[in-house]
Amino acid sequence: MIVALAGGVGGAKMAQGLQAALPPGGLTVIVNTADDFDLYGLRISPDLDTVMYTLAGIADPVNGWGVAGDTRNTLDAIARYEQDLWFLLGDQDFATHVLRTEWLRAGKPLSAVTEQLAAALGIPSAILPMSDDRVATLVDTPAGRLEFQDYFVGRRQSDDVLGVAFAGIEHATALPAAVSAIEGAEAVIIAPSNPIVSIGPILETPGMRAALVATPGPIVAVSPIVGGRALKGPAAQMLATLGHEVSALGMARLYADLIDGLVIDAIDRDMQAAIEALGPRVLVTQTVMGGEDDRRRLASEVLDFAGALAARRTAAR
Amino acid sequence: MIVALAGGVGGAKMAQGLQAALPPGGLTVIVNTADDFDLYGLRISPDLDTVMYTLAGIADPVNGWGVAGDTRNTLDAIARYEQDLWFLLGDQDFATHVLRTEWLRAGKPLSAVTEQLAAALGIPSAILPMSDDRVATLVDTPAGRLEFQDYFVGRRQSDDVLGVAFAGIEHATALPAAVSAIEGAEAVIIAPSNPIVSIGPILETPGMRAALVATPGPIVAVSPIVGGRALKGPAAQMLATLGHEVSALGMARLYADLIDGLVIDAIDRDMQAAIEALGPRVLVTQTVMGGEDDRRRLASEVLDFAGALAARRTAAR
Repeated sequence: MIVALAGGVGGAKMAQGLQAALPPGGLTVIVNTADDFDLYGLRISPDLDTVMYTLAGIADPVNGWGVAGDTRNTLDAIARYEQDLWFLLGDQDFATHVLRTEWLRAGKPLSAVTEQLAAALGIPSAILPMSDDRVATLVDTPAGRLEFQDYFVGRRQSDDVLGVAFAGIEHATALPAAVSAIEGAEAVIIAPSNPIVSIGPILETPGMRAALVATPGPIVAVSPIVGGRALKGPAAQMLATLGHEVSALGMARLYADLIDGLVIDAIDRDMQAAIEALGPRVLVTQTVMGGEDDRRRLASEVLDFAGALAARRTAAR
Repeated sequence: MIVALAGGVGGAKMAQGLQAALPPGGLTVIVNTADDFDLYGLRISPDLDTVMYTLAGIADPVNGWGVAGDTRNTLDAIARYEQDLWFLLGDQDFATHVLRTEWLRAGKPLSAVTEQLAAALGIPSAILPMSDDRVATLVDTPAGRLEFQDYFVGRRQSDDVLGVAFAGIEHATALPAAVSAIEGAEAVIIAPSNPIVSIGPILETPGMRAALVATPGPIVAVSPIVGGRALKGPAAQMLATLGHEVSALGMARLYADLIDGLVIDAIDRDMQAAIEALGPRVLVTQTVMGGEDDRRRLASEVLDFAGALAARRTAAR
């Protein structure tokens, strides 16, 4: 069993590659839920949905989020009722949020809700929220403390990030199924998602780090920073204002105490020695994922790299 | 101020005619809410919505309910999640249910929710739920007691109706704004809606009948039975199995203690004398409403009839 830790679009692409490269049922994806929020009384889980739609093969290929070919008639009608539209929700997407909200209100945990939705879409992998407890990412900016989606979508990531907090995380528990999956994993792959607001909450959920320390296989991260830039989203600017080096080496420093290997892009090959001096072994390859074939190609390389690290581990014992 | 009591499609057509015939703000529609139910965790108020969409000019002209030109992408996506689809909800319609549910959960009463939705649609009339309290129509059939929408939509009105109950009505209170409107009305028009399950709950809501007894103007009903058949829906079969005569005369008997006038169709003109022998005066006209012009024409005739009855009342004092 391979476990992936994932946020939204980048994590979903990596997960799709892994799903394609592995036998059915061979992948468990543990997904950030600290971005979850309520809109129009519905519970929205952006990262879970992006991973779910992508693994179901119905994600919008251009945006990376939402359902391919979705319409926006419900949202337009909400606008007719003089409501603010600041977060795009397609009509098919509404179905997900309506059912999730109904089932959560009926007392079903988020993990069971997600399992039911994903099963109906025929997804062969397990998609697990990092926790069934609510955690909310808050972003400190010069404009004050913002809720994550206000920062991310509402204000288009235009504010400097001076700090990040995960409200409620101290009372959250890592999903037991996620802990079990990690503890039994052949390898854990940290997807090229935002290390601060996507992978960060997963790692900080009580119980998750201990499971990662106990995992028998190697832990391999794929750098979301390529040539000093983020593949997507505000990771680069966020890392910079939080005092991290915006580079593959900076990523290695962030994850150094956790990972056995780091996958970096060919453009960053001159950092290999410096990264390996910190501890992790390095795989240099093309990390920018295009279509499905490309995702599968990268996933296969990452899995081979993890296999080699596992053999090295075994040999070292 | 004219007050109309209305259920769904027939009531909405009558209300639209009245709205067109009256100066802006001259109409208050009191709407049955005993058909309201929850679906996918959302509160659906079918009659309120049908009246609202119709008065906003956006109702589907063929069905009479739902929004004209609406799509069904959310519902199709709900089906993809292996949920039963037995009640049709369009994408624009979902916007209404999502916002209503959100606002009700936030503690807003249904009347305030309805007012806000209707105001956003630019409706010049007041649309009032009969009560802010929940009442649920239950239908006794040979197959047992059914929830109303299960009987009405789910089983397509195929069961004989042996009895009807309005659960919770004894604890409900007529909406104060509805009581005030009736008590100050120049005339109250009972729309050609189902007398048992649409007008019935309105009349039985505690406080409503007393207001109707106290209303200064005439009360005029428009018969929903034309030539021994219901204009729409299961009213005829329901009246029959409940032991009522399925005719304009049967309607007169049902409403005799309440109304000053009954509007019947030309096809039923031979019942005029028998009806007037019961008390109510009769207006014979074309009661089957086609398009908007026809609704306005009927509404004008009904208003003129009510005006004549009011003059007669005044003269009798």
